[in-house]
Amino acid sequence: MPELRKDPIIGRWVIIATERARRPSDFVPHAVSEEKYEEPHCPFCVGRESETSPEIFAIREPNTKPNSPGWHVRVVPSISPILKIEGELERRGKGIYDVLDGIGAHEVVLETPEHIHNIADLSEKQITDVISTYIDRIVDLSKDPRFKYVLLFKNYGIAAGASKIRHARSQLIALPVNPIRLKDELVGARQYFEYKERCIYCDIIRQELEAGKRIVADINGFLAIAPFSSRFPFEMWLLPREHSADFFRLEKAKRGDLAKILKLVLNKLRRALADPAYNIILHTAPFRTPKAGYWRTIDEDFHWHMEIMPRLTRVAGFEWGSGFYINPTPPEDAARYLKEVEL
Amino acid sequence: MPELRKDPIIGRWVIIATERARRPSDFVPHAVSEEKYEEPHCPFCVGRESETSPEIFAIREPNTKPNSPGWHVRVVPSISPILKIEGELERRGKGIYDVLDGIGAHEVVLETPEHIHNIADLSEKQITDVISTYIDRIVDLSKDPRFKYVLLFKNYGIAAGASKIRHARSQLIALPVNPIRLKDELVGARQYFEYKERCIYCDIIRQELEAGKRIVADINGFLAIAPFSSRFPFEMWLLPREHSADFFRLEKAKRGDLAKILKLVLNKLRRALADPAYNIILHTAPFRTPKAGYWRTIDEDFHWHMEIMPRLTRVAGFEWGSGFYINPTPPEDAARYLKEVEL
Repeated sequence: MPELRKDPIIGRWVIIATERARRPSDFVPHAVSEEKYEEPHCPFCVGRESETSPEIFAIREPNTKPNSPGWHVRVVPSISPILKIEGELERRGKGIYDVLDGIGAHEVVLETPEHIHNIADLSEKQITDVISTYIDRIVDLSKDPRFKYVLLFKNYGIAAGASKIRHARSQLIALPVNPIRLKDELVGARQYFEYKERCIYCDIIRQELEAGKRIVADINGFLAIAPFSSRFPFEMWLLPREHSADFFRLEKAKRGDLAKILKLVLNKLRRALADPAYNIILHTAPFRTPKAGYWRTIDEDFHWHMEIMPRLTRVAGFEWGSGFYINPTPPEDAARYLKEVEL
Repeated sequence: MPELRKDPIIGRWVIIATERARRPSDFVPHAVSEEKYEEPHCPFCVGRESETSPEIFAIREPNTKPNSPGWHVRVVPSISPILKIEGELERRGKGIYDVLDGIGAHEVVLETPEHIHNIADLSEKQITDVISTYIDRIVDLSKDPRFKYVLLFKNYGIAAGASKIRHARSQLIALPVNPIRLKDELVGARQYFEYKERCIYCDIIRQELEAGKRIVADINGFLAIAPFSSRFPFEMWLLPREHSADFFRLEKAKRGDLAKILKLVLNKLRRALADPAYNIILHTAPFRTPKAGYWRTIDEDFHWHMEIMPRLTRVAGFEWGSGFYINPTPPEDAARYLKEVEL
């Protein structure tokens, strides 16, 4: 019997197919490493700093100059920004509709000076630098009073929306509004908090630790789980075990632990599923100002996490048109495969 | 300057790119008519009735028997149903989580006895029969107290999730829960109604008729618009001008008018964009029982409509992960192209 499962945070129902459940070997192999890209000329490699816009931030060797070699992680403005950085926010109505000028920042985080494709191939030290770079940029962008949120994501492989250059990178989009999915999570988590006076994510973590069967990894304060109502086969959430609403508050000492589990689960994913395309999306609390009273409990009731979504199946139009997903791989199976796969 | 636009019903912000806006000719042509399918053997064609499960419903010539030729539209159970029709609904908790057995109905509406691929190629009379069939099935499924909603959708082309057989058809999934997107619309529309005492869709229709620039077609009581905050290039909504919450209440006399506008806009879409893949999804009010007090205003505040979503761009993972969409074609441009294209 298939199962209908409800996401406890936003209330979305998902069908989990339990019969003829799809195992890793059932997915058509389409290895990202075999995709065709417009190479070998990559403007993101070390030594080609002049081919990008001037850098916004970098972690560099001492005594090296901006826009020259010597960097470990480098942030540059997107060459085709979807929002403009200059201008005033002017929210206005057009009759029943709401409009804002497209003000925002769109930055690219170059995760390595080498021409490496998958962040899973970087050293833990290097991934830690990437995480510190994310945090530095989010903190900096949070000071701009026009912005409410920074959307941080990564597209690995063409099926995940990657462009024609292979170099490992992520994108940051600073927005004057909150993405709707985040809003749904904030509302759901707040309702739960008002009722229970507990963070729903902390409760999920407790229950998952007790059940055990959806845990992929549990290392040094971070947990990787296959969520109970996974929309996609082999979907994973990465959460800090300790409550924290804001990703950018992650202490320096813990960033290496996050790097470790991220590298581990991405390598497991690649091994189990023959190098699939995936997206990673950070979910963190929006920037808070004193007047943002609506989210008054936000420090206590939201819990930052990363969602890792392998692109193994084609998402049928009706799925994103209705928000009603069909997942052919129970998360318990996915967790078991990922847990057991050897690297 | 790009524009951030907010959907007035569910509150989702979309970036509409206004510079370098993409015109129909900018989209990589991938004609559905040139896709490869496993043919010529089609189990859905007339004369092969024994190759499907026994029919649930059909519109047939007088004096023809079920499961024999003579049908115009035929409904059969899905051969690979995602839900099971037999069983009791038993909603239960697993700690913090909610689970239901996967009870539901999954039916396929064969829209023509001929091996025709696109519903746009059927006659208006035939499309009218298809619409009457949808209504007949929804009314019948609404009598089953286990069901709350019927999800009705169509996948045209592989990019839209179509399977390997080309024969024109739609799918119906009767669900014991409401899809989250519908819930978001119901909640948004109700909030608006409580504030304004008017249906938000009726207000949208009034404003669009006045502005004119997002109207693709306006025929005999039905309107096709490119919605103000379209997520996708050339997205269209088809709405009855007269207020109505329930699609299944569409009177017989008006079904031909819906068939006419549907055929028209699908042909325009095909002509403007070289036969793109698309999805159509019906949004209608859920079944109502006396105890469903939460949706008490539903007759007045919801307005059924069909969403037509061409699959021209790859939806990046971060888009469905965040609910934050980037649309490279302003709906005003899309409406103008579609309006002007000659058939």
